[in-house]
Amino acid sequence: MRVLVTGASGFIGRHALEPLRSQGFEVHGVSARGTGETPGMMWHTVDLHDRLQRRALLDAVRPTHLLHLAWSTEHGTFWTSPKNLRWVATSLELLLEFVEIGGQRAVMAGTCAEYDWTYGCCSEVDTPRRPATIYGVAKNALFEMSSTYAAVTGLSLAWGRVFFLFGPGEPITRFVPSVASALLHGTEARCTAGHQRRDFLHVRDVAAAFVALLRSDVRGAINIGSGSAHSLSDIAHRIATSIGRPELLRLGALPTSPDEPPLIVADVTRLRNEVGWYPTLSLDDGLADVIGSL
Amino acid sequence: MRVLVTGASGFIGRHALEPLRSQGFEVHGVSARGTGETPGMMWHTVDLHDRLQRRALLDAVRPTHLLHLAWSTEHGTFWTSPKNLRWVATSLELLLEFVEIGGQRAVMAGTCAEYDWTYGCCSEVDTPRRPATIYGVAKNALFEMSSTYAAVTGLSLAWGRVFFLFGPGEPITRFVPSVASALLHGTEARCTAGHQRRDFLHVRDVAAAFVALLRSDVRGAINIGSGSAHSLSDIAHRIATSIGRPELLRLGALPTSPDEPPLIVADVTRLRNEVGWYPTLSLDDGLADVIGSL
Repeated sequence: MRVLVTGASGFIGRHALEPLRSQGFEVHGVSARGTGETPGMMWHTVDLHDRLQRRALLDAVRPTHLLHLAWSTEHGTFWTSPKNLRWVATSLELLLEFVEIGGQRAVMAGTCAEYDWTYGCCSEVDTPRRPATIYGVAKNALFEMSSTYAAVTGLSLAWGRVFFLFGPGEPITRFVPSVASALLHGTEARCTAGHQRRDFLHVRDVAAAFVALLRSDVRGAINIGSGSAHSLSDIAHRIATSIGRPELLRLGALPTSPDEPPLIVADVTRLRNEVGWYPTLSLDDGLADVIGSL
Repeated sequence: MRVLVTGASGFIGRHALEPLRSQGFEVHGVSARGTGETPGMMWHTVDLHDRLQRRALLDAVRPTHLLHLAWSTEHGTFWTSPKNLRWVATSLELLLEFVEIGGQRAVMAGTCAEYDWTYGCCSEVDTPRRPATIYGVAKNALFEMSSTYAAVTGLSLAWGRVFFLFGPGEPITRFVPSVASALLHGTEARCTAGHQRRDFLHVRDVAAAFVALLRSDVRGAINIGSGSAHSLSDIAHRIATSIGRPELLRLGALPTSPDEPPLIVADVTRLRNEVGWYPTLSLDDGLADVIGSL
């Protein structure tokens, strides 16, 4: 088994490499930026948008498996960026070329933002998809095309819909590290009231779920979440308790956007029953991991 | 006004060129195949899938308007071909590049196959989209991404959903020319019972509707059809009557596929009220045009 991992130096990708290696894959990581050496795997510095570079890579590696995580996900801008459409185009070309060189099993990264968020609990089977952003529209469109293509050609393809993730190395402006960082510096952590509930999963577990999904033959869309929702205020309290500075937490200091859905949680029936995967890190252990990294 | 027409030598495209010119456009036609000279317009032999060729074309022409008709539509295979995904990728890149060079108004070709055909009458506003083929899935995905992108960026973009078209030059295996050709040769025209009703529009009218749509600022999806459904048996009878060989018509000689929807007709409210366009050719005049061309 030889796997090509795109976005291998990204937030999720970097945590997938060692699990893939230890589970018997010959691992080839793609990154647009140059990378150092990593024991037990090969790095390829390739701009996936460049057809010639991409084809040369596929011809050289000839992967049996594809784990396609690469995308533009700059915090704050990726929801509305035209780059989303460019990534759809590149992802389609990559998938067609992967099949052309004899690829057998592909897993691509989707998002909970494909769902109609008014439903709260998101099921791959029952919940309508009605993305409200160009990011969600692009991912949903790529899902529809890829899964239809797979059904027509017999390609084994799964689509892992990521919910809310956190972990060491994420931009400091995101929720978990911003609260933890403020408290660690002894400054106020100004938050919204935080009544909205979200399904958070530690990035190491997200990556492990993708690896388990890749190793399986489960097809179609699979939610990758914990299956449990926590309010942002609960998460902030857990961080503050762990750090020992609950008095610096300022819940309600910032207004809650009226667009914030009250609940977004993954139905993880397929992930548990078909893939057989369960999270390994508790929420508190995951948060402690982030706090320790700051 | 300078328009770039992709698929300009194709079935619809070739009929759009003269109307565009006579309505004041500087017309630049793109074709993957070499073409002859056409008075009053410029031809460009370009493989649109090739990024370098495509960018050089856009830089050279710098169109204000884009009429994107190019696609793979080989009769019989295009419903299921992976080329559909390649065309989505290329169309996305083309649209982004058109906006980058300052393009103002784009019209792209969609299809009635985006709709859920169990509804019969297809409205842009009310009818759910549930494409059953990779062709329909690809077109629908491109529509969702393009229209979301246009809404975010302010680009003026319309999506013309073509229904059933016919006209001189279409492959002889298609319904209208196959019946007409058999009867003209004095051989039996073997058909299904032909109870299914379809919205047929002559290709010259389809092209004229696209030109009217391009000249307007109407945005989003617009059905391009006649607004009237005719049964295939009615159309076959009209052809046979026109040729004068009704005794050679064999309706019911072929089985009707159980997948054939009984009715597919365009709701043309938007086309009439917002674009202000009406067909110019009657069904009988259109059929006579095909018969005369064989």
